[in-house]
Amino acid sequence: MARHGATSLLRKPDVTLPHRLAVSAAALDSDVTPNALVDGWIAARNAAHRHEVDRIEFGDLRLWGFDERTGDLRHHSGRFFSVQGLSVDTDYGHVPHWSQPIINQPEIGILGILVREIDGVPHCLMQAKSEPGNVNGVQLSPTVQATKSNYTRVHGGKPVPYLEFFRDPPPGRVIADVLQSEQGSWFYRKRNRNMVVEVTDDPRFDDAELPADFRWLTLGQLHTLLRADNLVNMDARTVLSCMPAPAWPDRPGADEFPASIARSARPDAGGLHTATEVLSWITSRQSTHYVDTRPSPLREVAHWRRTPTEISHELGLYFSIIAVDITTNGREVGSWSQPLVRPFGTGVVALLVKRVDGVLHALVNARVEPGYLDVVELAPTVQCTPENYTHLPAATHPLFLDVVLGSRPEQVRFSAQLSEEGGRFHHAYSRYEIVEVPADFPNAVSDDYRWLTVRQLDELLRHSHYVNVQARSLIACLRGLG
Amino acid sequence: MARHGATSLLRKPDVTLPHRLAVSAAALDSDVTPNALVDGWIAARNAAHRHEVDRIEFGDLRLWGFDERTGDLRHHSGRFFSVQGLSVDTDYGHVPHWSQPIINQPEIGILGILVREIDGVPHCLMQAKSEPGNVNGVQLSPTVQATKSNYTRVHGGKPVPYLEFFRDPPPGRVIADVLQSEQGSWFYRKRNRNMVVEVTDDPRFDDAELPADFRWLTLGQLHTLLRADNLVNMDARTVLSCMPAPAWPDRPGADEFPASIARSARPDAGGLHTATEVLSWITSRQSTHYVDTRPSPLREVAHWRRTPTEISHELGLYFSIIAVDITTNGREVGSWSQPLVRPFGTGVVALLVKRVDGVLHALVNARVEPGYLDVVELAPTVQCTPENYTHLPAATHPLFLDVVLGSRPEQVRFSAQLSEEGGRFHHAYSRYEIVEVPADFPNAVSDDYRWLTVRQLDELLRHSHYVNVQARSLIACLRGLG
Repeated sequence: MARHGATSLLRKPDVTLPHRLAVSAAALDSDVTPNALVDGWIAARNAAHRHEVDRIEFGDLRLWGFDERTGDLRHHSGRFFSVQGLSVDTDYGHVPHWSQPIINQPEIGILGILVREIDGVPHCLMQAKSEPGNVNGVQLSPTVQATKSNYTRVHGGKPVPYLEFFRDPPPGRVIADVLQSEQGSWFYRKRNRNMVVEVTDDPRFDDAELPADFRWLTLGQLHTLLRADNLVNMDARTVLSCMPAPAWPDRPGADEFPASIARSARPDAGGLHTATEVLSWITSRQSTHYVDTRPSPLREVAHWRRTPTEISHELGLYFSIIAVDITTNGREVGSWSQPLVRPFGTGVVALLVKRVDGVLHALVNARVEPGYLDVVELAPTVQCTPENYTHLPAATHPLFLDVVLGSRPEQVRFSAQLSEEGGRFHHAYSRYEIVEVPADFPNAVSDDYRWLTVRQLDELLRHSHYVNVQARSLIACLRGLG
Repeated sequence: MARHGATSLLRKPDVTLPHRLAVSAAALDSDVTPNALVDGWIAARNAAHRHEVDRIEFGDLRLWGFDERTGDLRHHSGRFFSVQGLSVDTDYGHVPHWSQPIINQPEIGILGILVREIDGVPHCLMQAKSEPGNVNGVQLSPTVQATKSNYTRVHGGKPVPYLEFFRDPPPGRVIADVLQSEQGSWFYRKRNRNMVVEVTDDPRFDDAELPADFRWLTLGQLHTLLRADNLVNMDARTVLSCMPAPAWPDRPGADEFPASIARSARPDAGGLHTATEVLSWITSRQSTHYVDTRPSPLREVAHWRRTPTEISHELGLYFSIIAVDITTNGREVGSWSQPLVRPFGTGVVALLVKRVDGVLHALVNARVEPGYLDVVELAPTVQCTPENYTHLPAATHPLFLDVVLGSRPEQVRFSAQLSEEGGRFHHAYSRYEIVEVPADFPNAVSDDYRWLTVRQLDELLRHSHYVNVQARSLIACLRGLG
């Protein structure tokens, strides 16, 4: 931290940080964890994490059961999470009223990435972690990914490694620390504490061998790994998005697209809208849209039915609640059972981007989801499961889905299948895409959409509940193209 | 709005704004509405607004009544607001559980001040408005102060003057636009849209005589009027606080205290904590404190009793709900009746400030109130009604109340009795004070308190739900000392 003078108490921000992050983003390989060894490390962790997940009947869940009065699905301790009903009225979209099951998890967990400069390059400490809902064994997760029940060891498991860096970090070493929401269609007002903490000269890392599940990776390495299907997990992506964007150096002659991202991230970048106009737009959306949610007993949710093995919508759409039994040697607890949300179909999550006078803009959607703490959050341009709309008239289909599905290969700047949180969701993945549209794509498209710069999104990400978890994922991916 | 070049679509913030606001703040008088005429104008408006408020029995309320099943007090239309019960559990403070009546007003109203440069000096269009709960007739309110029921004319009243400037303002003319909470002890998740809109070259103001209730005043004039008891109303104060602070010019040789405010408002002002540290502290408070609120039927609220004329706590403390009948000629509707909240005692709302290396810092408190949308908001250093604590042990008395009550006259930089919203509260006023403490007052006082600069508070005020309504009032008053 810079100081005004030798005796001043006044502190100023670490202006070197975005430049140091740019050094990390530019480091596409690292002597600390060479790229050539990453695949082998993940394969080894997959082999080490014996991990068996079996679907079971709700009646065979250990320590979980349906509340006799409400039909809610709860843990006997009252901790962890529960599955309840939610009744929704809104003016947003084409369905003014519905009711649905939803996960209530009031505890705030910690998602934290530890950053440390090694040989002058900031590295992130990532963990190979398996979750019961993962489609493919281990994925790369943050240094710490722990619910309060985890880290206060309600279930009597092993201590969470590196937790102490996040529970009481020295204030000057915090790079990001913000509560962010998760899927508002599946979680009722859930949020996690997204943290990035830098560690320097800590004797705990001197010559110490890392535990086998942990490795230091540069931002550049992570950006490459983000392009692999189902490898960097949702929690890692959201924490990465809450880091400030790197201050990419000017690269004359560089390909115009990355340069437009770099320009878009600059503090002095102009945009189609000023920061005040962006905030005013968000306020107008919060004020204009109406959403009224009332928690209700799960047994009273209309059009959903419960069988011994699942709770699902009568049309077979949206998602279902299932129960699984897990045996693993790689977790705090070796064996347990729990409910999971199993989405129907494969989601499409896409951000349209375009260059305006050489500055990249991303088209975000002020979107109502019933589980948000406040009315709207900013979502990607498209966020849907197309199969849920096939029985509905074309007028109700999501805006811009046709643009994404009809894009030419050279427009697709990013495309990967990425997973949602495997601790709550079973084989939940979406096709995440960043699609560039021509400069003549309209600037004004709808009251619920605006073109924002990378810098504007960065500023919003310093605060809670502006940018939803799907948009955060794509922002992390977009930075990887800078 | 400045532009990059003749053909660029990229827009940048209006960097002249804080300087133009400083011009307005420096204008302590104005040819448009000379100070010498203000008292007479207010006296005339008081005379013109025939205004009779009589306490009545709940049974005599027109169009309001108690719901048979819940005991909630509601308007027959289901609009406006209702008085319900709320059950609260929290780790904050000395009372872990209680239940209370609370106002539920889910509609978002508009509080808007219109700004216009006249002879090169920005002026604010203020309204002399009487409210049924006002202790003293009219007070100065924003240009527009309207609930959604008002401005959509549910009660069939007259149209709201100047509303059109705020319902659909040109984006480039919006100076501030943010949802902000109101009293979290009396309102359940209420917020209003605080707006400041600048108007230029509008034919509606050419040579037009203003309606008798409206006058243009400079920020400098408003800062002086803020020091008068019960004159500038709560809604005006909160909107003023959401304006950016003026960029006061350097005044060499000026009294050190105002200069310390000016320095504290600068974008490059250092502080005891960086912006990231402030946000991390707020996140830690949101994550650490626990508050669980459950709306409940009013008839089930323990320790509160209902008589024909009031609903009050059995100890006679906190507040009561009363009913009044109003006859006036100065409102959209000439006569109506409604419930009001009548607080017990006179509040003390105080901000401790101190200079750190010449930069003013204000001590704010991350405070839990049951009506906040999120867990905590930043409150003034002291916010309490001392009489509510006299029956409790000294250890439970509010922190720093003794510092405020024991301050020497020369420490008191601001002191006035200011009213809360007279549309909902009956004779609700507090002693608002800004008290300077010596530089050796501790920098670290408690996990729930932090010293923030004017600039840091300004930045937080661009966003919803960081700064509570009492702190916003004091921030408006503090700027008047710059």
